[in-house]
Amino acid sequence: MHELRKDYIFDRWVIVNTERAKRPRDFIRQRPKIREEGPCPFCPGNEKMTPPEISRVELKGEWVLRCFENKFPAVTTDGSPELKTEGEFFTKGNAYGKHEVIVETPRHRQQFQELPVERIAKYFQFLFKRRNSLYKLPGIKFVSMFKNHGLEAGTSLAHEHTQIIAYNRLPKNIEREIKAIISYHRKHRQCPYCKVLKLERKGPRRIAENDSFLAFTPYASIFEFEAGIFSKRHLDSFSNLRENELLDLAELVKKLLSRLAVLKAPYNMYFHEAPKGKKEHIHVKIVPRLITWGGFEHCTGCIINTVSPEQAAEFFREEGE
Amino acid sequence: MHELRKDYIFDRWVIVNTERAKRPRDFIRQRPKIREEGPCPFCPGNEKMTPPEISRVELKGEWVLRCFENKFPAVTTDGSPELKTEGEFFTKGNAYGKHEVIVETPRHRQQFQELPVERIAKYFQFLFKRRNSLYKLPGIKFVSMFKNHGLEAGTSLAHEHTQIIAYNRLPKNIEREIKAIISYHRKHRQCPYCKVLKLERKGPRRIAENDSFLAFTPYASIFEFEAGIFSKRHLDSFSNLRENELLDLAELVKKLLSRLAVLKAPYNMYFHEAPKGKKEHIHVKIVPRLITWGGFEHCTGCIINTVSPEQAAEFFREEGE
Repeated sequence: MHELRKDYIFDRWVIVNTERAKRPRDFIRQRPKIREEGPCPFCPGNEKMTPPEISRVELKGEWVLRCFENKFPAVTTDGSPELKTEGEFFTKGNAYGKHEVIVETPRHRQQFQELPVERIAKYFQFLFKRRNSLYKLPGIKFVSMFKNHGLEAGTSLAHEHTQIIAYNRLPKNIEREIKAIISYHRKHRQCPYCKVLKLERKGPRRIAENDSFLAFTPYASIFEFEAGIFSKRHLDSFSNLRENELLDLAELVKKLLSRLAVLKAPYNMYFHEAPKGKKEHIHVKIVPRLITWGGFEHCTGCIINTVSPEQAAEFFREEGE
Repeated sequence: MHELRKDYIFDRWVIVNTERAKRPRDFIRQRPKIREEGPCPFCPGNEKMTPPEISRVELKGEWVLRCFENKFPAVTTDGSPELKTEGEFFTKGNAYGKHEVIVETPRHRQQFQELPVERIAKYFQFLFKRRNSLYKLPGIKFVSMFKNHGLEAGTSLAHEHTQIIAYNRLPKNIEREIKAIISYHRKHRQCPYCKVLKLERKGPRRIAENDSFLAFTPYASIFEFEAGIFSKRHLDSFSNLRENELLDLAELVKKLLSRLAVLKAPYNMYFHEAPKGKKEHIHVKIVPRLITWGGFEHCTGCIINTVSPEQAAEFFREEGE
């Protein structure tokens, strides 16, 4: 089952994906852990363990980046991408799309931020190229690109990788941002983030910048040590970045993740941008996963952050270990 | 610092609470664990370890329920409950309110669902009485009642307890539900949940019912084995429940949590209801925390659920171990 379902009365969607078909007893709580036993399917030599390769980047005859379909996809291209309502309360459709994996380095123990800036820029180029291909599929409304690093950030494989889920809904969180941007733009004839950037650049939440990007800790960060890397130039989509901009983005991502490595922080990294024809202001979000949300956060949607963004920025601005 | 902050451009709020005042290095990742060493502040005999008691329920001369302020409150009554905007993008206010704890049993190792039905009903009565008191404070917009059980559900103390956070915002998740109910009501002259109940009562997601409550797994559940216990009678607030209804609620909560105990599942339990004058349809949500959300969930707001609500209902309907 790969099904998209909508809440009875409000606009919240879930992908019900029971493909791994566990029985209830398989959920009996065990301390989760990173899989260490057995050969790593992402290491060179074990390429046959993954679904067929979609593309790769080679350096001196060996692959350094490799993309293939996820072995346990959250979405598939079975059926139609259309959604339908049965009666008043039961809206659903196929969870339609593609779910891919990019292995970021051939070396099992190399961490993403240890890659040279040029290699990280190459990774971005490779990732955004896959993004563009996936947007060409019929029925795709959004291509979500994200990285889970560490157990508490939702991964079970240690070998560094990124996932891409292209599917048939514009996600709520992106839609909310796009709507707020459009509404601000209508009133003020400019992008709100372009203005926020000018303010944060001078303030206590600034971390670092270069020609193309500015890194800061957002004013109302919901995660401890959350950081955003915003393009200084207004762009709606990552696929419009020039080569020097990719290098600048890589430099700041490397810098921030290197600082987080001091905390041994599990983290997610993801990409905010608009699908074709919509307004956004591209930024990369880095969100460490240091605290577990409880009943208050899940009931209310109001998050408690125990590190102020100003403290977090101070930490990021420091150098070294 | 106890500050409520709003996102730059959309309506998402965070409580920035740095009272525990850690330094960044204190966040260096260690496997979190339930605190086991030292005396338990929630056990009888250690009452002096908690902030002053607000109220208690006694049975045969000993307390069985005990309420006091949280030692590390997320909100306080310092300053004013008003919110203000500085410039266009920086909206904030005091995270104003009260944060209390209810210890649910004097016995350190007793789990909530092991309490007799009458004791659970007594707990609800005690909890909803605290709720009513807290709504009387000036500036309080919502009283959130929730329980975190187990590490992955956000608790660090094993002794069973509930928290109450009364604060100066109507939370987004509750507001969204209230709005959807009002909008449906305007069109159809009835509560949508009253209608959903009639459908779910006959369907594959029904778990159990008694005179006053119906338990089922919601159609678009976002958590594995999520369950809702809905009042059959339309009520906006838990404080309107009669004594027999409290017993009926207790019976179903005990039944569902006993099944979850088979999975040793960490879980949150929380209460959906309206503040005075607003429309809701009361229900208790029980959400096991078996899977960690990753970058996809946090970026998009679309959750992947690996157990279908129909499978989950089947599990809950079974008896015993």
